[in-house]
Amino acid sequence: MIYFLSEEGAFKEAVSRSSASYLMVNIYGKRVALAWPDEDAPRLTTGASFMTIRRPYVLSSREFKPEDTFVDVGERVRIGPDSLTVAAGPCSVEDEGELLELGSSLKRMGADMLRGGAFKPRTSPYSFMGLGEEGLRALSRARDELGLPVVSEVLDAASLPLYKKIDMVQVGTRNAQNFPLLQALGEFGKPVLLKRGMGNTVEEWLGASEYVLSRGNGSVVLCERGIRAPGSPTRFSLDVGAITKVKRLSHLPVCADPSHSAGESDLVEPLALAGVAAGANMLLVEVHQHPEMALSDGDQQITPEEFSSLVNKARALWDLLNRAGVKERDELESRLRDRVRKHRRDSGRGGTRPPELP
Amino acid sequence: MIYFLSEEGAFKEAVSRSSASYLMVNIYGKRVALAWPDEDAPRLTTGASFMTIRRPYVLSSREFKPEDTFVDVGERVRIGPDSLTVAAGPCSVEDEGELLELGSSLKRMGADMLRGGAFKPRTSPYSFMGLGEEGLRALSRARDELGLPVVSEVLDAASLPLYKKIDMVQVGTRNAQNFPLLQALGEFGKPVLLKRGMGNTVEEWLGASEYVLSRGNGSVVLCERGIRAPGSPTRFSLDVGAITKVKRLSHLPVCADPSHSAGESDLVEPLALAGVAAGANMLLVEVHQHPEMALSDGDQQITPEEFSSLVNKARALWDLLNRAGVKERDELESRLRDRVRKHRRDSGRGGTRPPELP
Amino acid sequence: MIYFLSEEGAFKEAVSRSSASYLMVNIYGKRVALAWPDEDAPRLTTGASFMTIRRPYVLSSREFKPEDTFVDVGERVRIGPDSLTVAAGPCSVEDEGELLELGSSLKRMGADMLRGGAFKPRTSPYSFMGLGEEGLRALSRARDELGLPVVSEVLDAASLPLYKKIDMVQVGTRNAQNFPLLQALGEFGKPVLLKRGMGNTVEEWLGASEYVLSRGNGSVVLCERGIRAPGSPTRFSLDVGAITKVKRLSHLPVCADPSHSAGESDLVEPLALAGVAAGANMLLVEVHQHPEMALSDGDQQITPEEFSSLVNKARALWDLLNRAGVKERDELESRLRDRVRKHRRDSGRGGTRPPELP
Amino acid sequence: MIYFLSEEGAFKEAVSRSSASYLMVNIYGKRVALAWPDEDAPRLTTGASFMTIRRPYVLSSREFKPEDTFVDVGERVRIGPDSLTVAAGPCSVEDEGELLELGSSLKRMGADMLRGGAFKPRTSPYSFMGLGEEGLRALSRARDELGLPVVSEVLDAASLPLYKKIDMVQVGTRNAQNFPLLQALGEFGKPVLLKRGMGNTVEEWLGASEYVLSRGNGSVVLCERGIRAPGSPTRFSLDVGAITKVKRLSHLPVCADPSHSAGESDLVEPLALAGVAAGANMLLVEVHQHPEMALSDGDQQITPEEFSSLVNKARALWDLLNRAGVKERDELESRLRDRVRKHRRDSGRGGTRPPELP
Repeated sequence: MIYFLSEEGAFKEAVSRSSASYLMVNIYGKRVALAWPDEDAPRLTTGASFMTIRRPYVLSSREFKPEDTFVDVGERVRIGPDSLTVAAGPCSVEDEGELLELGSSLKRMGADMLRGGAFKPRTSPYSFMGLGEEGLRALSRARDELGLPVVSEVLDAASLPLYKKIDMVQVGTRNAQNFPLLQALGEFGKPVLLKRGMGNTVEEWLGASEYVLSRGNGSVVLCERGIRAPGSPTRFSLDVGAITKVKRLSHLPVCADPSHSAGESDLVEPLALAGVAAGANMLLVEVHQHPEMALSDGDQQITPEEFSSLVNKARALWDLLNRAGVKERDELESRLRDRVRKHRRDSGRGGTRPPELP
Repeated sequence: MIYFLSEEGAFKEAVSRSSASYLMVNIYGKRVALAWPDEDAPRLTTGASFMTIRRPYVLSSREFKPEDTFVDVGERVRIGPDSLTVAAGPCSVEDEGELLELGSSLKRMGADMLRGGAFKPRTSPYSFMGLGEEGLRALSRARDELGLPVVSEVLDAASLPLYKKIDMVQVGTRNAQNFPLLQALGEFGKPVLLKRGMGNTVEEWLGASEYVLSRGNGSVVLCERGIRAPGSPTRFSLDVGAITKVKRLSHLPVCADPSHSAGESDLVEPLALAGVAAGANMLLVEVHQHPEMALSDGDQQITPEEFSSLVNKARALWDLLNRAGVKERDELESRLRDRVRKHRRDSGRGGTRPPELP
Repeated sequence: MIYFLSEEGAFKEAVSRSSASYLMVNIYGKRVALAWPDEDAPRLTTGASFMTIRRPYVLSSREFKPEDTFVDVGERVRIGPDSLTVAAGPCSVEDEGELLELGSSLKRMGADMLRGGAFKPRTSPYSFMGLGEEGLRALSRARDELGLPVVSEVLDAASLPLYKKIDMVQVGTRNAQNFPLLQALGEFGKPVLLKRGMGNTVEEWLGASEYVLSRGNGSVVLCERGIRAPGSPTRFSLDVGAITKVKRLSHLPVCADPSHSAGESDLVEPLALAGVAAGANMLLVEVHQHPEMALSDGDQQITPEEFSSLVNKARALWDLLNRAGVKERDELESRLRDRVRKHRRDSGRGGTRPPELP
Repeated sequence: MIYFLSEEGAFKEAVSRSSASYLMVNIYGKRVALAWPDEDAPRLTTGASFMTIRRPYVLSSREFKPEDTFVDVGERVRIGPDSLTVAAGPCSVEDEGELLELGSSLKRMGADMLRGGAFKPRTSPYSFMGLGEEGLRALSRARDELGLPVVSEVLDAASLPLYKKIDMVQVGTRNAQNFPLLQALGEFGKPVLLKRGMGNTVEEWLGASEYVLSRGNGSVVLCERGIRAPGSPTRFSLDVGAITKVKRLSHLPVCADPSHSAGESDLVEPLALAGVAAGANMLLVEVHQHPEMALSDGDQQITPEEFSSLVNKARALWDLLNRAGVKERDELESRLRDRVRKHRRDSGRGGTRPPELP
């Protein structure tokens, strides 16, 4: 249930007389009150226009915010409907010098952001776990030197203070429903790249994003990285339908990760292109100078040369499918906004469903 | 195990002294002897150069035939690496007049082939089963009138005589491992559109194609239509990785069916584009003048107008990714052929593995 | 929609004035009229008491027939709620002499039926396909000699005439939605062992059974043989929940096939027991004198000795859950507790395995 | 790679000259050195007998410790091969008085442990999250009063200090690969009930357990709670094959959670029995006095009366499979056969259900 507040005092008073739980959130320039469970709604309506949404997610839904969200990373990168953002880099940061050299090549080839793992979640405790804090330092130096914002995965809330000089914090598939971590990221405030759990539904994925948004951090990019599907020849099946579907349900930008889906370097480019064709706003690609010598995930990392081919094709494809559409989209969104506004005016305080998006 | 025969007589004599099973196949302009199980191979080598392939499929593999296969349908359609073939039409043929009208629109919008179900496999025996023979007659009349080749699904070998005026015979996901039907199609000789079983691996899919090829019919198009994947928001998850992977393993053309994957019309276009981006040579799309009135699968059928948008984007995307490549491909294939020829010459009768494709 | 007919004439007259499709079925001692689609129902009600069921299956539902169905196979076997039926035998019939010898052992050990594949569906056309008609003849001779009814898989309707001396006809997972075959079996009249498709839902499975029942053959046993589940360590994950669920939805007996689920002989016994614990009325087990020499599925076949252990435990377990009265069980438990106490006293608390059942 | 140390000094010296990472662990009464990656092994062998294991898990493997492990919880409960341990209780602790009352009933009915959620991981942040610290206090008071050890889920390492009076700490499916949490539990020292991730393989599950063991805590019970399987009618498919398989690969006890698999109360008992039949050493069952009023997971919670039936059957089944001597079973079977014969004689051959166990 969402409240768009007119009078906060009246709302709090109403809540104090009911059994409802509630949360006040400042997000996307609005002050919003959320209250649950739904049964208590009728008692809370005094002085506030409101909508009811019976889904695990509210703030990340198109009903709440029809227009696409832009997520700013650093000063120059803006992830969203107007461009294709490409983040690339090694699975793990292994050496600062190599990272700088690779980052410099990737920037020249067209990468917008640099990715690199410092704290690595590994199936076995006897695998290379990443350089840890040293890896994060190498990333932040690469950022300063190259002028590329950096993204790196975090494993627990306790480590967040180490991520102050990291521009975007990634939540991996194994932590996709680690709710205390998601809440901590909601308060940390940096943009979040939120992978889908390998066995999660789209509802669960959006529910996870809601943990970040409901703490006031609206800068979340959803990342599809493949699901375990019986019979698929890839390590994880890139669920292109989920990319498309989640964009209809949510205003958040969507990223495709072809590297973890593919599991072998040969398949990375076609999966990246499929992701863009399905509507992804961003790509996250693992690149290594010498994949055969990588300390982790060597099979799926591509070379800088292969990356160059990938990024060129992906951008051409994105332009083909989206350029023409940017203007149209702006028109559509303006119409949608009018429509939602009108619906709200007409329905007043009634708890009816919001208008369906066309 | 494959034998490229030099002396058929010597081969047969060797087989008669062993316990091996064997098959003589005329395919792709070659006369091939296949013998199994593998243990008996050494006894059969007299007078024949041969290769051993330890996979469920042989004739459909790139080791056997490195260059892409073209499948001719009717007189004007050639499915393969040089173009994107688009087949469109209603889930079920419901009325001859409507079919003609729809087919005429689709042709004008850029469809290469007309699809339509006459015998429909339905989960329940109390669903609309299609018009049967009457549906096939309507299709063949549409073909004559519009000059578009037609494709329709067959459910059992006994009905094949009814498909004489159908240009391409489709095997549905529920019959993807109906081996007697596949063998009958091998002998029937018409081009086959072979869907992947909804729970099948790529190896099983190619094994199924091998049932057709091993009876001498090399005109098989593999069709990915989505797999049951837990957590996916689409009815079936379009396994784009399988499209890419099967093209590396096999020389057969690959079709993507976005309609059955999507399960809802909204998602058909992006899935179609993802399929093309992943490398599909063909699209199979369900279109209906009035999807809301369709007797089957109304939710996933798109309107002719939506089809027009889809086909335009898909062709632009295909051109972008492939046009430049056609020339390169021809060069690559010619190099591959030389390499395989050289390998065969060098390795003589030895049972070594064939050269890996680059 | 189901009609329990009072006046057939009135029903037919009503149908002739509507657009409904209909079927008259004699099944389970009733004469039933089925009509669809549901929209036409109201026009058909004259003179007939009726029910509406909005599911893909009607005759196989508990709504239609609340009490459990018994399926008689041959003269002595009755599959249903009063006993556990065990069918065992080789994956493929390889030799008549061996089959007789094995069948004789299995009968002595407690098997109720003999299973054996004659026409085998194999992923690759270059695998052992079974002895075909010769295999069926061996089975029917074994039946005559041993007095055990036999069950064997059929691949297409055209081969059904060869199954006249086979007591029960099996439909494999690859033909689980081969609707023409299912309809032919409905008319053939022999009991059917209907495997669940490896990617099928319970609704689809019951829909498949409905194709047999709606042709007047009510003798169907549903067989769960495992589904493709991502992450499962077995070849197919035995879906015990489906066994339980399908028994609640349908009156048909349910069989568990632990051999195809397990994929390795070690796991066959515990999966068989889990199937019985979940409510299976029947077990289908692959047994071979020398699994390591089997021409197909050697890994999952167990030896006669292992079968003997399995069948004893399975029967004891079935009896415990289905037959034991309060007093007997209580006495047993008290004795068992004494024994356990004694065992612990004797063996200390070391981590050894408890005594095996013989 | 495992080292069983003879001389720790020599080992450390060898490591200091190599690039290997290593860990010294005191576990199961041994002092063990673990070193990786495997390539560095040969350089480390001086003065130490060792084994190499190329799997994500070492300490949890049967190769390392062939005999079954017992996990002691509190003073009276010992989970392992000699008995079936049953933990039961509400999904969430909702009220201390109700918890005491329920716990008292469950103890009388045969539960060995009391379970209850205090911190609940919920798909949506707008769901009931549990009573938190207050819930843990209620559990520890119930423990003191009833003398039953308690188990409750933890969501992050930061909350562990609150679990000092909880006897066993549960890791949920969403945290199954939350490696920092698992390491913290390795150091916390309390017994851990480790659920399998809903999309995890057995290798990943054992890899997760290894994070606990490698910090010196050997008291881990593995809990199968169902996986997302396409086509299954249950919320999660209870993977009985995984229960059996993991017991062969590992010495750790295994628990089955039928409640989360079932998703509906009707299916809980048969799934529990299937789990025991497959070899589970423990059951974890959700019970609520008034499931229809539960604040979470009401659909899958059973009543105390249903629990009583479940626990009696489960114990009888466990005894049968694990304890019963030949003579007892044979006598039972003969009596049962008589009873069945009598039952058939009395009831004719009608299709009624057999007498239920009370």
